[in-house]
Amino acid sequence: MGMYQRDKHFTDVLTNNGPNFLPDLLPADSGEGVTFAFLEQLMDILLQYILKSFDRSTKVIDFHYPNDLLEGFNWELDEQPNTLEDILMSCRTTLKYAVKTGHPRYFNQLSTGLDMVGLAADWLTSTANTNMFTYEIAPVFVLLEYITLKKMRAMIGWPGGCGDGIFSPGGAISNMYAMLIARYKLFPEVKEKGMAAIPKLIAFTSEHSHFSIKKSAAALGIGMDGVVLIKCDGFVPFYVSATAGTTVYGAFDPLVAIADICKKYNIWMHVDAAWGGGLLMSRKHRWKLNGVERACSVTWNPHKMMGVPLQCSALLVREEGLLQSCNQMNACYLFQTDKQYDLSYDTGDKALQCGRHVDIFKLWLMWRAKGTMGFEAQIDKCLDLAEYLYNKIKDREGFEMVFDGKPQHTNVCFWYVPPSVRYIQDKEERRNLLMKVAPQIKTRMMAFGTTMVSYQPQGDKVNFFRMVISNPAATQEDIDFLIEEIERLGHDL
Amino acid sequence: MGMYQRDKHFTDVLTNNGPNFLPDLLPADSGEGVTFAFLEQLMDILLQYILKSFDRSTKVIDFHYPNDLLEGFNWELDEQPNTLEDILMSCRTTLKYAVKTGHPRYFNQLSTGLDMVGLAADWLTSTANTNMFTYEIAPVFVLLEYITLKKMRAMIGWPGGCGDGIFSPGGAISNMYAMLIARYKLFPEVKEKGMAAIPKLIAFTSEHSHFSIKKSAAALGIGMDGVVLIKCDGFVPFYVSATAGTTVYGAFDPLVAIADICKKYNIWMHVDAAWGGGLLMSRKHRWKLNGVERACSVTWNPHKMMGVPLQCSALLVREEGLLQSCNQMNACYLFQTDKQYDLSYDTGDKALQCGRHVDIFKLWLMWRAKGTMGFEAQIDKCLDLAEYLYNKIKDREGFEMVFDGKPQHTNVCFWYVPPSVRYIQDKEERRNLLMKVAPQIKTRMMAFGTTMVSYQPQGDKVNFFRMVISNPAATQEDIDFLIEEIERLGHDL
Repeated sequence: MGMYQRDKHFTDVLTNNGPNFLPDLLPADSGEGVTFAFLEQLMDILLQYILKSFDRSTKVIDFHYPNDLLEGFNWELDEQPNTLEDILMSCRTTLKYAVKTGHPRYFNQLSTGLDMVGLAADWLTSTANTNMFTYEIAPVFVLLEYITLKKMRAMIGWPGGCGDGIFSPGGAISNMYAMLIARYKLFPEVKEKGMAAIPKLIAFTSEHSHFSIKKSAAALGIGMDGVVLIKCDGFVPFYVSATAGTTVYGAFDPLVAIADICKKYNIWMHVDAAWGGGLLMSRKHRWKLNGVERACSVTWNPHKMMGVPLQCSALLVREEGLLQSCNQMNACYLFQTDKQYDLSYDTGDKALQCGRHVDIFKLWLMWRAKGTMGFEAQIDKCLDLAEYLYNKIKDREGFEMVFDGKPQHTNVCFWYVPPSVRYIQDKEERRNLLMKVAPQIKTRMMAFGTTMVSYQPQGDKVNFFRMVISNPAATQEDIDFLIEEIERLGHDL
Repeated sequence: MGMYQRDKHFTDVLTNNGPNFLPDLLPADSGEGVTFAFLEQLMDILLQYILKSFDRSTKVIDFHYPNDLLEGFNWELDEQPNTLEDILMSCRTTLKYAVKTGHPRYFNQLSTGLDMVGLAADWLTSTANTNMFTYEIAPVFVLLEYITLKKMRAMIGWPGGCGDGIFSPGGAISNMYAMLIARYKLFPEVKEKGMAAIPKLIAFTSEHSHFSIKKSAAALGIGMDGVVLIKCDGFVPFYVSATAGTTVYGAFDPLVAIADICKKYNIWMHVDAAWGGGLLMSRKHRWKLNGVERACSVTWNPHKMMGVPLQCSALLVREEGLLQSCNQMNACYLFQTDKQYDLSYDTGDKALQCGRHVDIFKLWLMWRAKGTMGFEAQIDKCLDLAEYLYNKIKDREGFEMVFDGKPQHTNVCFWYVPPSVRYIQDKEERRNLLMKVAPQIKTRMMAFGTTMVSYQPQGDKVNFFRMVISNPAATQEDIDFLIEEIERLGHDL
């Protein structure tokens, strides 16, 4: 690339340093020479990977089966150290077989894309290598979390951004927090005495809600059968988890109607907007979350629709103090009460975790870089692309939509029906054949590595493709490519 | 530094790009010029921070009170974007007020140090920006987790490294996993039916164990009062959490004796070796964990004693399949059963989380770089330094040890008693004065920013310093400095 004018001596040191290289890396008596040469070679590798990630002529994945990858290289952990050259080679190999999640044709998950400012922020976060538990050891990050959570609450519609919140390691944990504090709010004695001391609880959610709702109930001792769709006599309904943007269909529950019912029966209203929360940034689309301002708690994952690097998930809570009283254990070795600064900035005791990774900086820095309007433009573009895809395939021969009407989010669910299946009249036979189409196309797609999109069955619907668009790098051309690639790979099935 | 010969054009672009810079960053029509210039400037900032982190003449922290930091800068999130120059300035400001956790004189937490290979691995992980749920989207990382967990289990002493495990977002969550699967093992119906369907459970742990044990019990619906020290009739003892390396004293529970009791009464034996697990790498010190090979589950945080960047915590489980059956929800949109590869590599359904950050690569790469012997040398050196500190202060005037005898881990707990308190006979008066000494010294220490060490009370012991050494950059000189600095800051109190 010509930008690195490396001192030849450093390169020599890096190559020839032998097994006892460790004394040459910082903190080293010999200074920073080897360290900088090493990190700059690493940067070369990363920059090349970034370039390839955005290059449509490169594969999304160079797929190999687990045993091939395991046996094709030496991944073993030995007694002896390896050279820095070997370490750099391991980095190259790791990236060679990595999935390019920033590639414009990677559509496989809700989290896609590679934001350059977010990436820079994550590198800085790694370098700062600290922990969110106290202001003392993460002063700026704690303040940025405070500022950003307040801003997010304001966008939800809570007056003046009031309330509380915390960043957690992902949407499932955020949802677990919500159920945990809802239970505590209703029956604070559960913290001391456990579920044995309180009535059997029932939580309500839709059949398309995320599996983390049931997982939370199982973990929290409520039990999976405490999560139901209909009212059961004798049990205490304590929690409704409404979904704003379901995982597969991208559907939004009617939040206003749910809020009315929750208010009437005094039930905690949680909105799982892990996927749909990003739409709050868009003046055009935020109406889909109308009613969210009446929620008691909201899960919102900036690492999904907003393209923030993984992990970045927030739980927002309407009532102040609840997170703290529900989770605090007053571990005095962390949270001394005789410190010299305002202790409300020591957020550690609110968390279910003890140590907590710094997830805030990448979101904050991206927000600074784009402004709210930048996020809005990025999100609107993804929704436009989803509509473009929908319009393109809804009447196209060989494509069938899984649900009627324009998608509410960027999820577009469809079957590709190859000619051999297309004209079969027998419903059962057609169904049995169609079930196998998406997996076969996906296997071929992985082998070619040209694009990636996920498929799954849902309820009585056999395997269909779930297309989602959260990657700002994607364009109409990539949507066109996906359709044609599915046809190319599936036509002869 | 002279190593970056930047194209002047790029610098101009960076400075003058105005508010609408976004189209210039990748994925950009204009190519990678601006992106590379931006990331290289960021690298300059990070390299300078790394240099300063290891420079004893720089402060560990440039401390400011929350309101001063909040009001001294513009941290707000606005509608409008900012320029890349502004973004780089934010990065500089953030690091200026960050705590240098890699500084040789930073002793404030169990996680300290800044490993250059670990850092490189974390930068790569950020760039790869993927998720651990399936082999499909994280093939290499999933394999490296498999290899590393097996190696860790072998080091625990399970035959051939058999068993299971998962990396979680920290020790508290790892401990929660352990309690969750222990309960499930004894009463699998709890997953469906909740705590209402099973007897009241009791878990045992020591009074110095980590607060996450009680936190887990509260969250899981067992209740905090289900965690006790003595046997209670009528309840079902199901779980013992032994501690290998307590947070404050660094003490090790007698694991062999505990294993005997757990075997006799068929109780799940968990070892919380979040802090002490690193000693398994040391032939000299691993005897302190004798008996750990008889545990059902072990928490081990490489981000503590092994110096891996945050977050890196593992839960190791002796019995295969339990994590999966306890936590699986069979979400078919993630874990399709008709995939073309061996599904045992799709680890997502074992996790309490849905998305899971890639925490494995930094540990794996560091292990490759150092070899087991490199970790051993690093850990032995920290324990030697702790002994050096202990020998130096145990009979030194003005210092009093909190517990008798040589520390088992690197925790050295002591009071500094200033001359004004040193000769007071009245126990109560002495105690009331001594209580205030450590907080006052700490406040001054933060203001000078020269070093950082934590303090806390424990039980009937008033505030004392808890020195811990996990930073490979620390030397005897830094220990000498700490002692003299405490004397300098506290002498006149």
